[in-house]
Amino acid sequence: MSERALGTLFTLGMGPGDPELLTLKAVRILGAAPVVAYFAKAGQRGHARSIAEGRIPAAAEELRFDYPVTVEIPHGDGRYIDAMAACYAAAADAIARRLERGLDVALLCEGDPFFYGSSMYLFDRLRERFPMEIVPGVLGMSGCWAEARLPMTHGDDVLAVVPGTMTEAALQEALLGVDAAVIMKLGRNLAKVRAVLTALGRADRAIYVERGTMAGSRVLPLAEIADGAAPYFSMILVPGRQGPR
Amino acid sequence: MSERALGTLFTLGMGPGDPELLTLKAVRILGAAPVVAYFAKAGQRGHARSIAEGRIPAAAEELRFDYPVTVEIPHGDGRYIDAMAACYAAAADAIARRLERGLDVALLCEGDPFFYGSSMYLFDRLRERFPMEIVPGVLGMSGCWAEARLPMTHGDDVLAVVPGTMTEAALQEALLGVDAAVIMKLGRNLAKVRAVLTALGRADRAIYVERGTMAGSRVLPLAEIADGAAPYFSMILVPGRQGPR
Repeated sequence: MSERALGTLFTLGMGPGDPELLTLKAVRILGAAPVVAYFAKAGQRGHARSIAEGRIPAAAEELRFDYPVTVEIPHGDGRYIDAMAACYAAAADAIARRLERGLDVALLCEGDPFFYGSSMYLFDRLRERFPMEIVPGVLGMSGCWAEARLPMTHGDDVLAVVPGTMTEAALQEALLGVDAAVIMKLGRNLAKVRAVLTALGRADRAIYVERGTMAGSRVLPLAEIADGAAPYFSMILVPGRQGPR
Repeated sequence: MSERALGTLFTLGMGPGDPELLTLKAVRILGAAPVVAYFAKAGQRGHARSIAEGRIPAAAEELRFDYPVTVEIPHGDGRYIDAMAACYAAAADAIARRLERGLDVALLCEGDPFFYGSSMYLFDRLRERFPMEIVPGVLGMSGCWAEARLPMTHGDDVLAVVPGTMTEAALQEALLGVDAAVIMKLGRNLAKVRAVLTALGRADRAIYVERGTMAGSRVLPLAEIADGAAPYFSMILVPGRQGPR
């Protein structure tokens, strides 16, 4: 018996939300994929899967991986880390079984796969054993600053991308002296982020964007947003220095 | 006489270089554009224009804007600033004349339009007078880290994007304490950037990428690249902390 060729894992960046922001390459690979895999929050459709709607071949097998926990347990908690690791291990095994049988797998990722993506944990587990291709996608933050019509970085600007989950002191240090900033993972951190931007004299230029490029998107000055929990698809943008230099 | 409707300026992110990394939206708008505009270095074809090859309607008017100077004059020099401002003003005028006649204009931009893009200077000049749409694109750095198969940012990583043109002290301050970094505009700054990364203990993880997603791309550990001038399409990537946390 001849050895069967291994399948390839195609990790596809699906962009910020608008399905028309898919790349030609992602559309081509998705349209020919015998297996389509994606993560989703339990009880929800899955953002990456929604973007792919209408482009998955009828004959394709869909592999859905539910995140076991999202906000119920603090992310520093050992139970959270163990549960996520088990989820990634099970997903990697399920994908590996298809690749071993010679089936290509398209793994769908919101935004860009290597920018805060869950797919990186599968890549790390499978990269030594199977052929891999990474297809970059439009970043969520690019979708947000396009939606906000906000030129972000000019000339020699320094840009910082920071999670709102940091402590107030760490946030302040990370943002001190940078020209432009993107603050993600707002969640319950909006008041803290506002306090830091105010202390740095940057709050008046900060723009809040929710669901950039998606239906129901909102763009508002940070000053017009009340403190409280911000939804998952939201971020704050602080544009850099303006004008040709 | 009825007033003619104004044309719309569509500013299109053309992605990192591989034409298959165009978005469906950019392809649609480009294929229907009566006027296609782009910047290019004098004597060269223009990177954004190359990515669009085969997609510009035969009947479209092409508006090419030559950058008056690139590396001949230091960027802080008043002559450089004046020459660039005159170039942007002339380009904005040429585009405005088409928009006033009701013609839509597709302005082609390497990578993403609002991330270190020349198109921002035209946007600033025209935004009050004409309808505008910004189409985000895959960033050059996303193309590079996909090409390098380098997962960049995980969990709560902080990412800094910095130009290699900064002073050594400023670079060191900007990179101190960040988890992941992208260093652009290498040019003649490679030795300086290496010194900073070495001082910060990050040089051994740094990856050099040249012409990411394009023909003739190169991916090498920074240690294997000699000091000297790096080409325009090159950057250094320092990946963040690894593993699920």
